[in-house]
Amino acid sequence: MRAPQSDLPDIAADTLERLRKRRPRVHCITNAVAQNFTANVLLAAGPIPSMTISPDEVAAFAASADAVLVNLGTFDADRRAASETAIAQIRAANRPWVLDPVLIDRSPPRADFARKLASQAPAAIRLNEAEFKTLAASERPEAYATSHGTVVAITGETDLVTDGERIITISNGHPLMARVTVMGCAETALVAAALTVEPDPLNAVASAILLFGIAGEVAGDVANGPGTFAVHILDALFNLDRAIIRARAKVLS
Amino acid sequence: MRAPQSDLPDIAADTLERLRKRRPRVHCITNAVAQNFTANVLLAAGPIPSMTISPDEVAAFAASADAVLVNLGTFDADRRAASETAIAQIRAANRPWVLDPVLIDRSPPRADFARKLASQAPAAIRLNEAEFKTLAASERPEAYATSHGTVVAITGETDLVTDGERIITISNGHPLMARVTVMGCAETALVAAALTVEPDPLNAVASAILLFGIAGEVAGDVANGPGTFAVHILDALFNLDRAIIRARAKVLS
Amino acid sequence: MRAPQSDLPDIAADTLERLRKRRPRVHCITNAVAQNFTANVLLAAGPIPSMTISPDEVAAFAASADAVLVNLGTFDADRRAASETAIAQIRAANRPWVLDPVLIDRSPPRADFARKLASQAPAAIRLNEAEFKTLAASERPEAYATSHGTVVAITGETDLVTDGERIITISNGHPLMARVTVMGCAETALVAAALTVEPDPLNAVASAILLFGIAGEVAGDVANGPGTFAVHILDALFNLDRAIIRARAKVLS
Repeated sequence: MRAPQSDLPDIAADTLERLRKRRPRVHCITNAVAQNFTANVLLAAGPIPSMTISPDEVAAFAASADAVLVNLGTFDADRRAASETAIAQIRAANRPWVLDPVLIDRSPPRADFARKLASQAPAAIRLNEAEFKTLAASERPEAYATSHGTVVAITGETDLVTDGERIITISNGHPLMARVTVMGCAETALVAAALTVEPDPLNAVASAILLFGIAGEVAGDVANGPGTFAVHILDALFNLDRAIIRARAKVLS
Repeated sequence: MRAPQSDLPDIAADTLERLRKRRPRVHCITNAVAQNFTANVLLAAGPIPSMTISPDEVAAFAASADAVLVNLGTFDADRRAASETAIAQIRAANRPWVLDPVLIDRSPPRADFARKLASQAPAAIRLNEAEFKTLAASERPEAYATSHGTVVAITGETDLVTDGERIITISNGHPLMARVTVMGCAETALVAAALTVEPDPLNAVASAILLFGIAGEVAGDVANGPGTFAVHILDALFNLDRAIIRARAKVLS
Repeated sequence: MRAPQSDLPDIAADTLERLRKRRPRVHCITNAVAQNFTANVLLAAGPIPSMTISPDEVAAFAASADAVLVNLGTFDADRRAASETAIAQIRAANRPWVLDPVLIDRSPPRADFARKLASQAPAAIRLNEAEFKTLAASERPEAYATSHGTVVAITGETDLVTDGERIITISNGHPLMARVTVMGCAETALVAAALTVEPDPLNAVASAILLFGIAGEVAGDVANGPGTFAVHILDALFNLDRAIIRARAKVLS
């Protein structure tokens, strides 16, 4: 039986508790700009990050990871090879991997590679509107999720999360999130982590998006600009609890 | 008619307003240490950064950028190839590119490459005293600017900006700027951005230097050390306004 | 004559004063995740970092450095080649280099490379318990230090530092250090710096570990989570003085 999405705040709180207790390992193949902040977002929420893209190491790291993140920012031949190795390993272990096709709207070769990876059974794809249009052409999010057997999360002022059958929209977040680099990249790492502890993929993805959005709101309340915001969102993730999540969640399903 | 430099505080305030409104795209080929902070400085001030150095992507990114930054820190073959591709693209589009020859005083091969790039019509070169001496040997800043058709900005306790004909000196800034890595790298990215919105190159470069120096002073007033300083300078850039710029500017011309 | 380790707080305070005054150059071959924070930790304490791993530049940088750090995180062919070049240069100059074999417990090829480097006379090796077991198999820290002619620092809740003959344990630090990425990597850079100003290698390594642990405690007193912690530890290093070091040091020898 699938939990109704109206319980999402509690599912998200459960997810966060499990992330803190189990501390799943997330191996991140991500861009050079995002590596440090992504690792810190994972550590703040509980999971243990690893970040190598070295071709002779990535197999060992992916094989001992609970989930893999593949982020296409600053994409080069090494990252491309590392992605394919890591995806093969994690799929062989029947564990989830997540795709973040950063800025494919600005790079045709990157878009081609994203389409190729999207056919390799990612548990979820998180991206923005422009990236989704580049990836899916005229296909609607629900149709794309169904045809690719994945969960699609399109983030923006309002976030849309769908597995093709169900749709959840989330309106948490803060305008300063758009003024700090690699926020979306780090958010996708949290999506990968959530998939290791919440069995329903739609709820896992939506939980991560909700937790990150609420942390952003909490940070926005105390920040004076993007510098303090980036610092406080880590503290907020670390300190988030069920009461805050319930009080702040803006979820429609 | 060129604006007199005594109006620099207002020109800088206009430049900042345009950066916030137009949000130009700056493609940054910069060192691994600087990528994250540089992106955050640009976002705090308004512009949209992109950072890939991948050989098969850089042409597409540079072609859709309003300006290109080439920073020689942590220089390797990939970055060298990416620089040449990006410079060719942005010059073909008749848009500005800016050179930051980081630490060329400590690496002869890097100095050679810097000299080669300096002959490819950078709109500006920002560097420190030791780097300038390595680049220009015994040539004076004004003579170097004239012979290379560029604007030279030599930053330090007092910053000197010259197009060969005019000289502006700026005495804003804070000692903690020297205690946080890649401050100069990020400042040069702001120079590249300013050149896309202020038509007089000398005033564009001097505006960026002035804005960054004043943001440093504002940050220095509230920082307790280099950690808080690096955070607050982002907030300061985000919150800077004409009144603060006019009140703080220490400009001579 | 070797100073008794009970003087470690004062030796550490002397070491910090010398780092601030002499500002030794530390060339860091370190992972992509750690580069920015490591540079900022060094600058906060006084030393001047350089970070390039480019094969055609690393010799010049290492040759003009006072110490070299080799950190094996995100290890790839470039970093491997750069390490060997840098180690050869710094050994030829009779200056110290330090090894940080990050996560070798998760990557057999990385562990092999670490063993190879450990035989090239590092002045110190800093690592955690799991990494030490992978490196040394069943050998005890003191025996390993003696057989390799190095100082071993195993950090954790309590840190153990030994040159084979003497053992120092340090119990400073803060739980949030484990919730911010690359803390250990940055700490090892400080170890490399300390070796350039304190002639007794054991005391140099223990001083760096003590200074970093105390800075962590000071940061922990004012932090609300891992985001503010990472910022405040830089301020704490910058502001640390003899009185704080004496009051906080928890050292056994």
